Amino acid sequence: RSAEMAKLTQLIDNEVFRAYATYTVIVLLKMMLMSLITAYFRITRKAFVNPEDTAVFGKGESAKKNLRTDPDVERVRRGHLNDLENIVPFLGIGLLYALSGPELSTALLHFRIFAGARIVHTFAYLIPLPQPSRGLSWAVGYAVTILMAYKVLKTALYL
Amino acid sequence: RSAEMAKLTQLIDNEVFRAYATYTVIVLLKMMLMSLITAYFRITRKAFVNPEDTAVFGKGESAKKNLRTDPDVERVRRGHLNDLENIVPFLGIGLLYALSGPELSTALLHFRIFAGARIVHTFAYLIPLPQPSRGLSWAVGYAVTILMAYKVLKTALYL
Amino acid sequence: RSAEMAKLTQLIDNEVFRAYATYTVIVLLKMMLMSLITAYFRITRKAFVNPEDTAVFGKGESAKKNLRTDPDVERVRRGHLNDLENIVPFLGIGLLYALSGPELSTALLHFRIFAGARIVHTFAYLIPLPQPSRGLSWAVGYAVTILMAYKVLKTALYL
Repeated sequence: RSAEMAKLTQLIDNEVFRAYATYTVIVLLKMMLMSLITAYFRITRKAFVNPEDTAVFGKGESAKKNLRTDPDVERVRRGHLNDLENIVPFLGIGLLYALSGPELSTALLHFRIFAGARIVHTFAYLIPLPQPSRGLSWAVGYAVTILMAYKVLKTALYL
Repeated sequence: RSAEMAKLTQLIDNEVFRAYATYTVIVLLKMMLMSLITAYFRITRKAFVNPEDTAVFGKGESAKKNLRTDPDVERVRRGHLNDLENIVPFLGIGLLYALSGPELSTALLHFRIFAGARIVHTFAYLIPLPQPSRGLSWAVGYAVTILMAYKVLKTALYL
Repeated sequence: RSAEMAKLTQLIDNEVFRAYATYTVIVLLKMMLMSLITAYFRITRKAFVNPEDTAVFGKGESAKKNLRTDPDVERVRRGHLNDLENIVPFLGIGLLYALSGPELSTALLHFRIFAGARIVHTFAYLIPLPQPSRGLSWAVGYAVTILMAYKVLKTALYL
């Protein structure tokens, strides 16, 4: 039993894999934060999409007028969807990249730039910063993911 | 060859990892079910978004009036997107948590509560149940994911 | 250090795992391509959703009229979301399936059919091809994922 655990945890003892774990958790927590920001704007702007969500603000017409879209809510939701579209590829490609035996320093560089780019992207989207801030931060995260994908294919290609 | 397979399958022989595999498959299948429910409502409510999808109901005006949004379809789609937003973090954080060497009973507790919360969330969204049913079931799954993320960072942090 | 790396890379040396890595990278890159296609249509159709994105086309009214939805942009976005809904389950279930000790030829068959179905689905959505092209290609990828989920549960079930 404990020998088996030792073997299993060998993965989490590897430094490259620990770096992957750390930065993956960071970007996933950042993505999860978008849910809270959406909820915050829905409540403060009184802009809901489900009739049952407006009940706390009274019944009838006064509740119905809270069933509406709000520009700030929609902006956070777009940022959240953009996270999904970009962090899902990182989740899969980053894992395979971490298992493909990269140099620790190279792997750290990729993970740090990706996480940094996604954090800048969130600020650029929510504040919002003038373009091309958001476009560039998106492109940096995208490019890092492509580079990791190339390394995975070079190491593991089996069609 | 068979020695190599033995080593590879050591992961799937580990009880914590098997529990992760089981509950991950359960929540992903549950999420996939949302596609079928969306299709069911689109067909029964005749509410499509792509012109080519309405062709089976005849050409011209009779088809065009089926290009519309329907509250039930939109509700299922929101539930599906909420699944993506919450199950993607579980997929990544849960995997890393399973590899971080938790106690089997603790891990099972986290996985079961997460899966249960997401199933309750789906019923709360689709029926729909009065609030705060949906909000609470969402929060429980969210909190479990945060707890697992904390364990991963405590075990593996490598910035 | 190098013995540890050898153990870690045993996963990426396994042929089934290499096949999983290859096809996962392929479908994730295909999904990422949807972002570029969306950007291409937004720019050529001048159909933006964020006010700050229209600034490059001049200020005032001339910029405001570019804040609009375009059928081609929306079509690509629906294809992108459909990718997320179907490739996320493949990412998780496929990984667990690859670790559940399938025959190499069987695993390759599943991965190739899934990847092929998603590529056909993209063409069927974007051209668009008449139905049931898109519906069938979606169903094939869906069915393959279900089959892999069944194999994972049969091998690893631990409730």
